[in-house]
Amino acid sequence: MAEYALHCFAQSGHAYKPALMLELAGADWAPVFVDYFGGGTKAPGFRAINVMGEVPVLEHRGRAWSQSGVILDYLAETLGLYGPANADERREILRWLLWDNHKLTSYTATYRFMRALAKDPEPAVIEEFGKRARAAWGVLEAHLAGHRYVVADRLTIADLSICGYLFFDDEIGVDWSAYPAIEAWLARLKAEPRWKHPYALMPGHPRPAP
Amino acid sequence: MAEYALHCFAQSGHAYKPALMLELAGADWAPVFVDYFGGGTKAPGFRAINVMGEVPVLEHRGRAWSQSGVILDYLAETLGLYGPANADERREILRWLLWDNHKLTSYTATYRFMRALAKDPEPAVIEEFGKRARAAWGVLEAHLAGHRYVVADRLTIADLSICGYLFFDDEIGVDWSAYPAIEAWLARLKAEPRWKHPYALMPGHPRPAP
Repeated sequence: MAEYALHCFAQSGHAYKPALMLELAGADWAPVFVDYFGGGTKAPGFRAINVMGEVPVLEHRGRAWSQSGVILDYLAETLGLYGPANADERREILRWLLWDNHKLTSYTATYRFMRALAKDPEPAVIEEFGKRARAAWGVLEAHLAGHRYVVADRLTIADLSICGYLFFDDEIGVDWSAYPAIEAWLARLKAEPRWKHPYALMPGHPRPAP
Repeated sequence: MAEYALHCFAQSGHAYKPALMLELAGADWAPVFVDYFGGGTKAPGFRAINVMGEVPVLEHRGRAWSQSGVILDYLAETLGLYGPANADERREILRWLLWDNHKLTSYTATYRFMRALAKDPEPAVIEEFGKRARAAWGVLEAHLAGHRYVVADRLTIADLSICGYLFFDDEIGVDWSAYPAIEAWLARLKAEPRWKHPYALMPGHPRPAP
């Protein structure tokens, strides 16, 4: 049995965040497939583990952790990698984790879901989420124009959180060459020796038939 | 000059989170009005303080902090109030701060904005955000049914984050009696000796004419 068990599925960029971190760190981890499209996150058994009804959930040393940002924080401590070097960096990482959850991942994930995975989405709703996602990409582009990584001059959990959905560019329908700083930063992440695309890292792709 | 300066405006539940904390703590603080409806958060001067272009921003001891969750974390340390008692509580608070930013405040704030403040909002978009907000209220109700406060048996910054928009019930169009655990918890917050409604705590209400 692997040391770290991560409840996840291939299409979840939220789950990809800790999955990529575990993989980059060379940790002993294994995915536990959650059949999201078959109602897996709504099942009472899953809600008992996480009242929020969301992946990822990390099981380690007899405890379960949820919320990707909490899991990244926990892994930074247990793996001794990608965490803050001091109190200022800790708050700067927290700032970008919160912004990611509020403004970037949230709208980007929903926009991609409606474009690529939902049945009969409402065009006005797709456009609203697209507009909000593009505003977030603009903020990230402005920040990365002056930084090689999101916080400090090295990979941290802020990068691993923010990149969660951004490798689904075809499903999002974005060409990152229009955002050159984001494109260069994503290339830096892809150049990490163990980097993998979400669909290569987690089970369930292609999407199982309903 | 007050010790703490908080850039805010009355209609912002995000800014209300640290404003309420400062007020409950009896801190020496003063609001700095940001004319959001007049484009104040889009101005280059404001973006120079916060690339994310959002209130709240807290100025204290010559530094500026942004993201409500970071400010709450910072105030918990400097005021010595409403913070975690140990490492487990720290991660449990972080878990609810992230969920609030991703699922509760984000959708509730946008739903309320479209219902109460936006010009010509798209009905399908309002309904999408309403559906998502109600799902989050359901998660919060399920959690609070078994807890007096969100984390631990006392007020913490998790409560102060999560309550941000929930006192705008008339503008949201929700009757909290349909969510009895949320209603009881909000009554606990209102019973705090220094509690004030956002419109009584921050400048700019009623909305300034454009």
